[in-house]
Amino acid sequence: MALMEKNGWDAQKPEDRAKCADHVLMQYFERTTAAARVHDPSMPVFHNSGHITRGNRSILQYFSHLELESLPTGGWGYDHFPVSAKYVAKLPHDFLGMTGKFHTAWGEFGGFKHPNALRYECGAMIAMNAKCSVGDQLHPEGMLDDSTYDIIGTAFKDVAEKEPWCENAEPVADVAILSSEAVHGSKGNGTDADTGAARVLLQSHVLFDVVDPEMAFDGYKLLILPDNITLNATLKEKLDAYMAQGGALLLSGKSGLSQQGQQFLFDIGAEYKGESEFSPDYILPEKAFAPEFVHTPFIMYGSGQRIRASGGTSVGKVIDPYFNRTYRHFCSHQHAPNRPEASSFDCGVVKDSIMYLAHPVFTIYKKYGAVAYRQYIRNCIDHMLTGAKTIETNCPSQARVMLNHQPHMRRYVLHILYAPRELRGYFFDNPIEVIDEIPPLYDIDVSLSLPVSIQHAALQPQGAPVPLNFTNEHTLQLHLDVIQCHQMVELRY
Amino acid sequence: MALMEKNGWDAQKPEDRAKCADHVLMQYFERTTAAARVHDPSMPVFHNSGHITRGNRSILQYFSHLELESLPTGGWGYDHFPVSAKYVAKLPHDFLGMTGKFHTAWGEFGGFKHPNALRYECGAMIAMNAKCSVGDQLHPEGMLDDSTYDIIGTAFKDVAEKEPWCENAEPVADVAILSSEAVHGSKGNGTDADTGAARVLLQSHVLFDVVDPEMAFDGYKLLILPDNITLNATLKEKLDAYMAQGGALLLSGKSGLSQQGQQFLFDIGAEYKGESEFSPDYILPEKAFAPEFVHTPFIMYGSGQRIRASGGTSVGKVIDPYFNRTYRHFCSHQHAPNRPEASSFDCGVVKDSIMYLAHPVFTIYKKYGAVAYRQYIRNCIDHMLTGAKTIETNCPSQARVMLNHQPHMRRYVLHILYAPRELRGYFFDNPIEVIDEIPPLYDIDVSLSLPVSIQHAALQPQGAPVPLNFTNEHTLQLHLDVIQCHQMVELRY
Amino acid sequence: MALMEKNGWDAQKPEDRAKCADHVLMQYFERTTAAARVHDPSMPVFHNSGHITRGNRSILQYFSHLELESLPTGGWGYDHFPVSAKYVAKLPHDFLGMTGKFHTAWGEFGGFKHPNALRYECGAMIAMNAKCSVGDQLHPEGMLDDSTYDIIGTAFKDVAEKEPWCENAEPVADVAILSSEAVHGSKGNGTDADTGAARVLLQSHVLFDVVDPEMAFDGYKLLILPDNITLNATLKEKLDAYMAQGGALLLSGKSGLSQQGQQFLFDIGAEYKGESEFSPDYILPEKAFAPEFVHTPFIMYGSGQRIRASGGTSVGKVIDPYFNRTYRHFCSHQHAPNRPEASSFDCGVVKDSIMYLAHPVFTIYKKYGAVAYRQYIRNCIDHMLTGAKTIETNCPSQARVMLNHQPHMRRYVLHILYAPRELRGYFFDNPIEVIDEIPPLYDIDVSLSLPVSIQHAALQPQGAPVPLNFTNEHTLQLHLDVIQCHQMVELRY
Amino acid sequence: MALMEKNGWDAQKPEDRAKCADHVLMQYFERTTAAARVHDPSMPVFHNSGHITRGNRSILQYFSHLELESLPTGGWGYDHFPVSAKYVAKLPHDFLGMTGKFHTAWGEFGGFKHPNALRYECGAMIAMNAKCSVGDQLHPEGMLDDSTYDIIGTAFKDVAEKEPWCENAEPVADVAILSSEAVHGSKGNGTDADTGAARVLLQSHVLFDVVDPEMAFDGYKLLILPDNITLNATLKEKLDAYMAQGGALLLSGKSGLSQQGQQFLFDIGAEYKGESEFSPDYILPEKAFAPEFVHTPFIMYGSGQRIRASGGTSVGKVIDPYFNRTYRHFCSHQHAPNRPEASSFDCGVVKDSIMYLAHPVFTIYKKYGAVAYRQYIRNCIDHMLTGAKTIETNCPSQARVMLNHQPHMRRYVLHILYAPRELRGYFFDNPIEVIDEIPPLYDIDVSLSLPVSIQHAALQPQGAPVPLNFTNEHTLQLHLDVIQCHQMVELRY
Repeated sequence: MALMEKNGWDAQKPEDRAKCADHVLMQYFERTTAAARVHDPSMPVFHNSGHITRGNRSILQYFSHLELESLPTGGWGYDHFPVSAKYVAKLPHDFLGMTGKFHTAWGEFGGFKHPNALRYECGAMIAMNAKCSVGDQLHPEGMLDDSTYDIIGTAFKDVAEKEPWCENAEPVADVAILSSEAVHGSKGNGTDADTGAARVLLQSHVLFDVVDPEMAFDGYKLLILPDNITLNATLKEKLDAYMAQGGALLLSGKSGLSQQGQQFLFDIGAEYKGESEFSPDYILPEKAFAPEFVHTPFIMYGSGQRIRASGGTSVGKVIDPYFNRTYRHFCSHQHAPNRPEASSFDCGVVKDSIMYLAHPVFTIYKKYGAVAYRQYIRNCIDHMLTGAKTIETNCPSQARVMLNHQPHMRRYVLHILYAPRELRGYFFDNPIEVIDEIPPLYDIDVSLSLPVSIQHAALQPQGAPVPLNFTNEHTLQLHLDVIQCHQMVELRY
Repeated sequence: MALMEKNGWDAQKPEDRAKCADHVLMQYFERTTAAARVHDPSMPVFHNSGHITRGNRSILQYFSHLELESLPTGGWGYDHFPVSAKYVAKLPHDFLGMTGKFHTAWGEFGGFKHPNALRYECGAMIAMNAKCSVGDQLHPEGMLDDSTYDIIGTAFKDVAEKEPWCENAEPVADVAILSSEAVHGSKGNGTDADTGAARVLLQSHVLFDVVDPEMAFDGYKLLILPDNITLNATLKEKLDAYMAQGGALLLSGKSGLSQQGQQFLFDIGAEYKGESEFSPDYILPEKAFAPEFVHTPFIMYGSGQRIRASGGTSVGKVIDPYFNRTYRHFCSHQHAPNRPEASSFDCGVVKDSIMYLAHPVFTIYKKYGAVAYRQYIRNCIDHMLTGAKTIETNCPSQARVMLNHQPHMRRYVLHILYAPRELRGYFFDNPIEVIDEIPPLYDIDVSLSLPVSIQHAALQPQGAPVPLNFTNEHTLQLHLDVIQCHQMVELRY
Repeated sequence: MALMEKNGWDAQKPEDRAKCADHVLMQYFERTTAAARVHDPSMPVFHNSGHITRGNRSILQYFSHLELESLPTGGWGYDHFPVSAKYVAKLPHDFLGMTGKFHTAWGEFGGFKHPNALRYECGAMIAMNAKCSVGDQLHPEGMLDDSTYDIIGTAFKDVAEKEPWCENAEPVADVAILSSEAVHGSKGNGTDADTGAARVLLQSHVLFDVVDPEMAFDGYKLLILPDNITLNATLKEKLDAYMAQGGALLLSGKSGLSQQGQQFLFDIGAEYKGESEFSPDYILPEKAFAPEFVHTPFIMYGSGQRIRASGGTSVGKVIDPYFNRTYRHFCSHQHAPNRPEASSFDCGVVKDSIMYLAHPVFTIYKKYGAVAYRQYIRNCIDHMLTGAKTIETNCPSQARVMLNHQPHMRRYVLHILYAPRELRGYFFDNPIEVIDEIPPLYDIDVSLSLPVSIQHAALQPQGAPVPLNFTNEHTLQLHLDVIQCHQMVELRY
Repeated sequence: MALMEKNGWDAQKPEDRAKCADHVLMQYFERTTAAARVHDPSMPVFHNSGHITRGNRSILQYFSHLELESLPTGGWGYDHFPVSAKYVAKLPHDFLGMTGKFHTAWGEFGGFKHPNALRYECGAMIAMNAKCSVGDQLHPEGMLDDSTYDIIGTAFKDVAEKEPWCENAEPVADVAILSSEAVHGSKGNGTDADTGAARVLLQSHVLFDVVDPEMAFDGYKLLILPDNITLNATLKEKLDAYMAQGGALLLSGKSGLSQQGQQFLFDIGAEYKGESEFSPDYILPEKAFAPEFVHTPFIMYGSGQRIRASGGTSVGKVIDPYFNRTYRHFCSHQHAPNRPEASSFDCGVVKDSIMYLAHPVFTIYKKYGAVAYRQYIRNCIDHMLTGAKTIETNCPSQARVMLNHQPHMRRYVLHILYAPRELRGYFFDNPIEVIDEIPPLYDIDVSLSLPVSIQHAALQPQGAPVPLNFTNEHTLQLHLDVIQCHQMVELRY
């Protein structure tokens, strides 16, 4: 209260209370960090709050390193860690992934996840350049629980063997997601847009980073601005520079609009007609972009923008529903059917190095998860990356693929992760997805386009060589007979 | 209101209103069924209410057949259909499974599940002896949607080819679950107990039926009374007869107690000391029953009964927590740790053909889904079925295995289903588990103990023979190199 | 719905729904009135909704006369009727007062108010120029209840005897309240301001009417704009005309401000400094205006305006509290004490024919009812009416005094009403004030200043003459030894 | 918490928490009282909680005297003090009445009640044998407010003059109310029954005390058990002894029933048939008991008991309504009308020295306050007191009459209080009844039947003699020409 008074903040105004809270938090960071280092200036300090908010850079001066708390069964799910890690890897901090040995979450004495789950989770950490931390909770008698340390031991034994291929490894990425959370803060809907974009890329095996507006955009082949990133002058300028050096953009929903939302700040090759009056509506993409199993109009939840291709090439048509579902108009259990005729609006447009999709497709995919959405978005991304993808593979969508570079070892390391997870229970309201047996994946093909000439490939840490099969100078085709859970493939040059 | 008055029911008493509602419902069944058959007495009639409540036999006279509405992504999940089908298959009615073409549920114009999902769902229906129904919603212009019928067509093409192996097939079962829902009605907690028991058996590949108290118990090797089935005289008598002809019982929680809950109505081989004062508590099963990766105390949520083995053999020990978590005692995020010493109580006991487990293990497994629970329960079930299981297999828990008999064809038909499903979205509050790519399963071993002598085995409908390998007179060992989604194996005798 | 569509109103907008409701209501008035007169165009029609909203003139074309429903014990209280009657008497419609024979309200079979209560209520009606209606509810057997009709009979016998002095009588008024309800509608807080003003005048025995902005203001000696009547151009112009012909104004609170509240539209003789930051605050009026028993600062609830006398004469000072009671500052059970020193602001100012009081004094009096408030306000009114009051009397505040004129009889009729009422119960949340025994009032002095020369005075209907005592040409001093309940005094000229 | 543990109380049981709270409260009383007296064992100590709960005797050992907080405008109303004082006067403690100078309640700096109100309130205190305390709240500057002390001074000047007639005065009472609050505690509905009974007696000018079951019943001519006092053996025995020495009883509602409510523990002269199925119902008392202005059935709210006179004399008949108002049956705004024919049940019965009324008449009067109820009850009380009342008077019901005895002065002192109070505002939800002008009461007749021979009567403190007029040896008829607010009449013997 004294602080508010001193600063002229009015405790009855929410915005002033928020200012005060920020101030106090920074004070906390400063003071506790200093206190921790009274006797040892190199004391590592990390302030945990369960999530590293993307874009919240000002507090990082008080962190010696980052710990990504993310217990997949304790409310975070299996998608939180990848998005977080792929952002944090671009910060200057060393970082670790933190999971738990619990079946649910912290405090579950006598609760155990299956050893396969921990093996998978640790594999995911090292594949995404994180160090590994597994939370346990000590019995008050100080006894270490044998079952717990057997399980952790199994996973850590794997990690120990794999460490040489992880040291000082740097992620390779073709695409960057400009984090909506970094732009809007974690209170907004940015998380959904980021998560949706990351899911599409993970499930499509596109190599990507997550960046905030302060990070470098250079070097990415495609930058995705998911769903709700309107532009201020600073960002616009930075994007112009990125494009000038050859970068491409994928915009969706309101991304690319001015902050008042009245016009696009790029020439997207279309007239802009504001937000659609219909929600949801339908789209029918051109064949090149359509999902493989859907060739008729499909539903787009959320609100789309109205564009009419002009100068650019249409991605497909919007088909309006007969009406919105309100007290006036009603049809069956959900929304109204599509009209027989397409509207005059397009669901997307591509012009030169910019593609724009009229719906908040990443948020939609996050919320609904229909395969058709992912295929549509992936086809659009592939279009923008034609000839430029570092990796192509026949892995199923449940598998995750990463590529790291160890320049000091003159090698790349390909990581493939695969474990079916099944919704088998709830921890309060949070779904518990269980990893149990992990069936092997067979007959994996991977095609790599690298800027170097690979001399040798081998499964690691097993050491078994993998035949090299070049389809052209820079394209290397590998065939892996079988992998299980987490497999590294070393590619020496 | 007139009806209530006529019957002396008081509209201000909930129980009288319930009586009235029942009466009106029966009247509805009677009258609408009669109306539907005015012109054609053989008119099929089914009254849908989204679920066939187990044990609700009195209404079935008004149903010509049964339709099991169960859209896995629309709120029912992938567990509802198996439990329902395994009960309904024991009723005299012909029945079908009803799923939808939607990504979510009814009314989703322009929503499509992946074709693999529908193939899997139809495969599950025919494996569980149901006919197939796929819901669509017609566009008001009367147009059939091409994408929809391509997807349905793919699935139905499979079904058409497989039909000969399904006609007049009867399920084979070693175990029956006496349905808690049938005893308590769907308003109670019976559904959780039934679902939990079914999940254990499905994931452990034990052949089972679900029965209500009016159905025959004879012929089952083991009858499971899950968690909360206290006994009245009629049921006790029927169970005595079942055991007299050689049947075995698995009781858990309050099952087997008298209706006032004061004593066990069977000699379970233990003293009964009422309900535990601790919830949750811990158990440490004997090695034979323990989960393979847990050999220290593990947490049991819910309340256990207190028993002390006396005459029977202990399944393991109960270890109490230091205290219950109340306003008085607090420890960390969840429950208190286990005491260092075991209590004097047992977590289960087996005597002759009865095994009793002191916790509501099936409900616990339904709610939490920890692999350790399933392994514990499965080990107990295996103990009671030693030497008596029709099938053993190395299939992973995500796979489902059924065996049907076509006596008129002198063959058995083994069904194996496998599709990873991933939680990828929500339909309102209901999780949407998505089936997308279905990786093949390799190197499946199945051991079969059948009462007949198998002459020939073949994958169907492919027709590819499978080598017969008898390990003894009645035990046939099969090896399948690879299967995908749904595979039948014909076993001719 | 069709109507809304036809008129382009959006049913999701509250303001459009209100428009529709108004339209439908007017339609109702029009159609039902027409229907009632199909066979007899002179059929009397009244549409009852429990209150005649002041200022709602547009609907009155559908009313042949007005019925003022106002059961004092049924939620309306004993203040509703006078305010309503003193407004309605200025409309062209004939009207009646409607009370009930019930102890509580409609539908109270077997409930009876004391006969004195009904005598008082009917007396009040005729004193305020209303005809009389007493509601009963007929027993279904059609029996008239003897007790009921004895009670009504007693009251109506009185009325019958008094009728000659009521026929075509017109109220005499020195003051008019410009109805806040008429300006703001009954949904606003206008009712409190009107009721508070009427209570002050009734309890101070000042003759008054209640008027709406469409009525004539001419002829009143003082017009009160209570608390919240900001001015538009039309009203300002009308007030200017009123003042030009000699009228005086009493403004309080926000009355007299422009509609944006930034300045006074009259020269009130003070600088305006906006609304006070303190609520409540204190005032210390000059001796001439102060309550007779309070000569130190007293509390004013609600928010006052800040004025500083400049050109006008101060009515008194504002004393601020030490602070407002908020989370920051706290003192005892209620508000903070007054500061020792007065502020520089005035609690009121008078200049020429305008007096302004800085607080919403009428609303305050309505809500709190402290005698000190009434005395303060009454002193201010008296100041504005110096030498101009038609009546002065020593009647206690619980008595009510009215004066009517029967020009065709060349007489005035003075009405005095008195009955103590006591809060003795509740009808749901509404207080029931009971009139039981009515003690007589003794030794009443009334001084009258009339524009005519009175020749004869007599109690009526008793006929007993009252001596005439002229203190000057136009001032007649009467002494009444004793009256009870309702007494008329005829004054013939 | 430690205390609960030590005493084996379970903090999750409301009854154990209540035990603990009681224990702590007693401990508080003990310790703080001791602390207050460390330096001065005669230090006066009073523990205020806003009300002296009747019957709560165990705490009184910690009170040196009692202070009856009762600010009539601050939520207590003008009925709280009399009921409380008439109970407390029978305790051995000296006591005072505590009101406030505020218009509302504590903390109202700058709020003033009219001096008449305080004069009346102080008059009521001394008439009911209480000393006087007037609450003020000191300004933080320590200034005493002149207006406040003028007002208090006016009232205290009166009191000072009247003191000699109040010293060591003892109340005279014909009737005692056995306090329902004392039997049930203040959380129950006892307060309404007590208040209702006290209102009837105050308004009827019957001299009464309020007693608890531990107090002596001897000497009262009538003991009222209002509405809900069922009997245990101890109370029954005490009542038997009271009646044996000549006492009479008035029972109402459930009073007089056994604790299980199955039978009357006295011979009331009627068969008991349980509680009526109708609520409300109607009664038609015999002429002797009927209200003076109601001779047809009138409504009784609340539930009556069913009795049929047998051996006793009926007080009147019950008439049932056509039906109770439920979802089934509906009539107009409130309850259903009475049936044309009376039921076979009686609304009361009198046999020897016991009268029983079948409805909770005192609670009904408290809640509704209809004059008809009071007249009915008063007529019943008068019947039981025939020839035994100490005082009869023509005072109106708004006046209050008390008689005190000063044996050491060989005189009685009659007190008459009268002040109309009017509901004029609210303090939060509490009605504010305002005392303003107090018109005088004229021509009061009082008839007194005293056990002594009065020699002289005089108005005091004025000293004006009042003529003595004996209608028989013990009945003295006094006529008072006029009194105002509070008047004492000294009666010397």
